[in-house]
Amino acid sequence: MANIKVAESAGFCFGVKIAVDAAVEAGEKLGGAYTDGPIIHNKQVVQFLESLNVKQLQPNQELKEGDTVLIRSHGVPPKEERRLQEAGVKIIDATCPFVKKVHEKVRQLVEEGYYVIIIGEEGHPEVIGILGHLEEAGGKGIVVSNMEELIKKMPKRNKIGVVAQTTQSEDFFREAVGYIAENTEEVKIFNTICDATSLRQEEVKKLAPSVDVMIIIGGKHSGNTKRLAQISKALNPNTYHIEKADELNPDWFKNAENIGVSAGASTPDWIIKEVVEKIKELTNS
Amino acid sequence: MANIKVAESAGFCFGVKIAVDAAVEAGEKLGGAYTDGPIIHNKQVVQFLESLNVKQLQPNQELKEGDTVLIRSHGVPPKEERRLQEAGVKIIDATCPFVKKVHEKVRQLVEEGYYVIIIGEEGHPEVIGILGHLEEAGGKGIVVSNMEELIKKMPKRNKIGVVAQTTQSEDFFREAVGYIAENTEEVKIFNTICDATSLRQEEVKKLAPSVDVMIIIGGKHSGNTKRLAQISKALNPNTYHIEKADELNPDWFKNAENIGVSAGASTPDWIIKEVVEKIKELTNS
Repeated sequence: MANIKVAESAGFCFGVKIAVDAAVEAGEKLGGAYTDGPIIHNKQVVQFLESLNVKQLQPNQELKEGDTVLIRSHGVPPKEERRLQEAGVKIIDATCPFVKKVHEKVRQLVEEGYYVIIIGEEGHPEVIGILGHLEEAGGKGIVVSNMEELIKKMPKRNKIGVVAQTTQSEDFFREAVGYIAENTEEVKIFNTICDATSLRQEEVKKLAPSVDVMIIIGGKHSGNTKRLAQISKALNPNTYHIEKADELNPDWFKNAENIGVSAGASTPDWIIKEVVEKIKELTNS
Repeated sequence: MANIKVAESAGFCFGVKIAVDAAVEAGEKLGGAYTDGPIIHNKQVVQFLESLNVKQLQPNQELKEGDTVLIRSHGVPPKEERRLQEAGVKIIDATCPFVKKVHEKVRQLVEEGYYVIIIGEEGHPEVIGILGHLEEAGGKGIVVSNMEELIKKMPKRNKIGVVAQTTQSEDFFREAVGYIAENTEEVKIFNTICDATSLRQEEVKKLAPSVDVMIIIGGKHSGNTKRLAQISKALNPNTYHIEKADELNPDWFKNAENIGVSAGASTPDWIIKEVVEKIKELTNS
């Protein structure tokens, strides 16, 4: 029978836990709510919330007084918040406190005269929110998600400020700020990668090379899970990124003695447990 | 006959040129001066200046009114400047303007509440001067000269400010600031590596791999020359660091078609010319 080691940092982070709890509460106590997109990148959780009448806002959906809108942990641009306020709906703000800190830091950098580089994924809801705060503060900046893009877009400015999407890779962050500082007179950096993200990545870096097979659980569209799988794959080619237990393939575990498991920030505990049980089943047979 | 390519950026930088010119002027017009250590890491230049009665201060040397003391391009701690003022000597301040900028930036970082990391060589006169300004401003900090040292000494602080000795390696600077930013909430960086240094290094990076032999000229104790030789050697194992033409070894140039030459910031043009002439001689025979 194989040894299965589940990373302690696997699964829900602080911010996601707050948002999911708030959504469940809105479903149970307020009879439902709208969310501005899927509350987390996890189909199973989204389906469960739908059963509680917590549903995604549709494009061009009319909001009326008395509706409840839950702002996800990713946060929103200030413009969107105002739109909701003007519509007179009840707002539950579940923006992750760490994301709020990024908004504050971006505003501070703009006030201090810095051009802003956001280390993050263009189009990600968290980054859209951050860019909204940058714009609102009257600042200018760019988003970069890899070194090639950074080198191509590198602005010629005397003062550059840097923040990161909270779930960015520490490795890219380190390389990027090194490059920015090498090419700029003055750089002010706020390392806004949240501890849960870096802890999860650090644990995978230790776990992946010490096992025969590594299973990373999380939504296929979840950026932090994809990065976790990338990090793991670089250290252990037998890495598989799955969303749920029924994707596990018995062939992966042939002759495997040690199996590692971790999961992205949007994976609930019960899905991790299901996967572990299924691996036990497959490696016993 | 071999092709000899001398890097355009080889030799005296702006700051060294100012200091040497000031020393020559002090010798010729004031009948001599003291310098607080060798004016540059180049024996030939130091000997020439001695012939003009521009000599190094000796330990515990008594200074008397009417003496002239020339502060080198490296700068001095404020304490040392006061000591000279109190002794009533005439001071010629040839501190490089780029070094003065480091002093200013360190003071600014201290005022803004940053703990300071100096990317530089402990004990180097420029770093001693920078540390003097750090202390004078009431700040705290450390000096690190390589990644191992940085990782070992890495302070746990929320706010860290970074400056560099003007002649530091861009590669180490980049790696170091990346690491510091990864492990600190807020980092403010002034890239104080002077353009002449980075230009010289960039040119060697291009030149070294394109030639058969690389000659780096400069004092054996000159930090910026040693780094130049290291960079060159990493890209071309046939790299030789010499101080003057008579160290050239004919064996180095056997079958060499292309020969590259560069020189540290403290190497005067006439020494570079001598070396080039000698290489021509050796490769013609």
